[in-house]
Amino acid sequence: MLKGNAIVGQSGGPTSVINASLAGVVDGARDVPGIRHVYGMRWGIEGFMAGNLIDLSAEPAETIDALRRTPSSALGSSRHKVKEPDFPLILQRLKEFNVRYFFLIGGNDTMDTIHRVTAYANSQGYDLIGVGVPKTVDNDLFGTDHTPGYGSAARYVALSALEAGRLARDMQRVDQFVIYQSIGRDAGWLTAAAALAKRSEADAPHLVYLPERVFDRDRFLADVEQAHKQYGYVSIFCGEGIKYADGTPVSASQTRDKFANVEYGAMGGSSVAMNLHRMIADRFGWRGEFQITESLCMCAIDRAVTLDLDEAYACGREAARLAGQGQGGVMVTLVRESNAPYRSTTGTAPLADVAVRAKPMPDAFINEAGNMPTEAFVEYLRPLVGPLPEFADLNYVPARAGQ
Amino acid sequence: MLKGNAIVGQSGGPTSVINASLAGVVDGARDVPGIRHVYGMRWGIEGFMAGNLIDLSAEPAETIDALRRTPSSALGSSRHKVKEPDFPLILQRLKEFNVRYFFLIGGNDTMDTIHRVTAYANSQGYDLIGVGVPKTVDNDLFGTDHTPGYGSAARYVALSALEAGRLARDMQRVDQFVIYQSIGRDAGWLTAAAALAKRSEADAPHLVYLPERVFDRDRFLADVEQAHKQYGYVSIFCGEGIKYADGTPVSASQTRDKFANVEYGAMGGSSVAMNLHRMIADRFGWRGEFQITESLCMCAIDRAVTLDLDEAYACGREAARLAGQGQGGVMVTLVRESNAPYRSTTGTAPLADVAVRAKPMPDAFINEAGNMPTEAFVEYLRPLVGPLPEFADLNYVPARAGQ
Repeated sequence: MLKGNAIVGQSGGPTSVINASLAGVVDGARDVPGIRHVYGMRWGIEGFMAGNLIDLSAEPAETIDALRRTPSSALGSSRHKVKEPDFPLILQRLKEFNVRYFFLIGGNDTMDTIHRVTAYANSQGYDLIGVGVPKTVDNDLFGTDHTPGYGSAARYVALSALEAGRLARDMQRVDQFVIYQSIGRDAGWLTAAAALAKRSEADAPHLVYLPERVFDRDRFLADVEQAHKQYGYVSIFCGEGIKYADGTPVSASQTRDKFANVEYGAMGGSSVAMNLHRMIADRFGWRGEFQITESLCMCAIDRAVTLDLDEAYACGREAARLAGQGQGGVMVTLVRESNAPYRSTTGTAPLADVAVRAKPMPDAFINEAGNMPTEAFVEYLRPLVGPLPEFADLNYVPARAGQ
Repeated sequence: MLKGNAIVGQSGGPTSVINASLAGVVDGARDVPGIRHVYGMRWGIEGFMAGNLIDLSAEPAETIDALRRTPSSALGSSRHKVKEPDFPLILQRLKEFNVRYFFLIGGNDTMDTIHRVTAYANSQGYDLIGVGVPKTVDNDLFGTDHTPGYGSAARYVALSALEAGRLARDMQRVDQFVIYQSIGRDAGWLTAAAALAKRSEADAPHLVYLPERVFDRDRFLADVEQAHKQYGYVSIFCGEGIKYADGTPVSASQTRDKFANVEYGAMGGSSVAMNLHRMIADRFGWRGEFQITESLCMCAIDRAVTLDLDEAYACGREAARLAGQGQGGVMVTLVRESNAPYRSTTGTAPLADVAVRAKPMPDAFINEAGNMPTEAFVEYLRPLVGPLPEFADLNYVPARAGQ
């Protein structure tokens, strides 16, 4: 067995449960006889290259335990993409800190980093075992049933849909529509979670637009008009990354110059919801609001799902266990063994596969009109999000005059 | 004692606890011997005028109980402002449905409605008792320590500040700033709740801008630069209603026409956060995000405070009790008897006073620089929001090479 230290880093956007995975790696590493210290990369691989390492083995056990209920990336994150010229410096740091076990918690770019760093180190005659721990609220990682972080973020979206749906229903005499913009640039998994709030045909959301389908302005306005006619108000969810057929993002600002040509330009941030809002207001003259929650769903620990926190921790522990057995070159995956009752276990996927492949929503999870997730998707998602609050439904018995 | 039916309506924007107040009125009315049926106004006073009344006494007790945990306005809301010509029709409906007890749950416009409707009815020789139940997430009602609905919405803002603050801290190598836009057009109570997330000087939020203070672009950019220098990133909260010294809303879209003149125009919704985002990006070239949650904080029952739900219910019950004792012409108020431990009771304020006066944040609750609530405000707010989650704080012990 390889003897030395372990390093663990967090990469890309945070989640509510990525620190639970960190705790899992630290706890799991204690059971690996070959691992002496567990070090943490401050600010990801960028900090590692700068020699900015911290000693996680020196943290009190209570702190490691509290990580299991602490959102965001306690080590600090980075989006630095490792390039060829970085490898010699990385190898130098590995040697300096006697690192033989290399863990990163992240998405597909991160898995690519582990893959290439370990390949380079080994090619230089330096034994290094690398294992990946999956993480992303976007749920678009290949090879795993779902990603740690997704369930909790999906719960945030589903709760927002459920609660704001009630508000939209009750305020329909004031505001005729509401638009919620969700993160998820390339995949609609998170936006689609809104469908979980729908308990009957009339319930919000009425329309859900996902990056997996081309956005068509005329079809959109027809959908909106139809929903308004049916329900009296319209609740719309949209992914930040939806695009027109020609590839133009709907988030692009669209103004007409003095020659009446349409101009596209970057706004000061994502603004799909604002653009859809404007389309509806222009066409129908309705009042409405748009909600842009951005990264709030990535850190809302008070809305985190216990199952998600536990699975994230389990993935971290499993990564350490696999490494201890010399099984590098893989990312830990979650395997759904049963849906009702829900039961999962861990598996593995080759880092090289995860690095180059994404997982958009399959066709079976989106309806034919491309404006609503299917019941099959809702069944997939339900156990990951857990039960949602139940509300009172009045019978609205008409009062009779003269009593 | 007056004998007849009671009517109750919900007015203006919803809250997470306004249905708890509704349940309180219904339950309280059962103890008033003079009240036979409790009717509900469908779609507020507008629905009442249209004869759209429902019989709440016909709802099962479990449904009324479930209202205590159901967000938004179950009766449906309206923003119709009662005008003089409406009074004869209103009186006609009161007579048709034999209504002798008149309850509305709402803000100052609503209290004005009760006041004028009862005055008109009585002036026409029709005995009517009107009592108001306070409601608004904005907390700007005169005569009450705080309003039902405020604590729960404030908790939503405080949680967002706490959780997104961690995210901003951990992502500072990627995004340099984050801006959260809160509702509250004229008063800063809700925006200010972000300050509750601050446990140390360095914690988010770093800057909080309230409608009670004039917004100055240069001072803002200087504040932002200073905070970024001190903390490495900047967390900013702003009220949707902040204005420049000349009264121009910061939410106004500001573009330069071809002669380089600044043009203001309504965007498709509030966009203070987007405009501040653009100011920072333009000046410093930083990457950041803006979060616009709008009415989500008005209906997030999963984040509601039990105290708030209980006080809202108590206000409803008290309104019925007062009416039963013939004490009309008042709004129920909340009186803080003690801060630690927190203890409150109900009181009353004349409807006429509440109707014409607002309650902006007092000077003692805003710091001298006008960019942060004071400790006095935090002490006022803390018991209304309840404890917030505690997180792990790593010691970040540097790792030593060569071990």
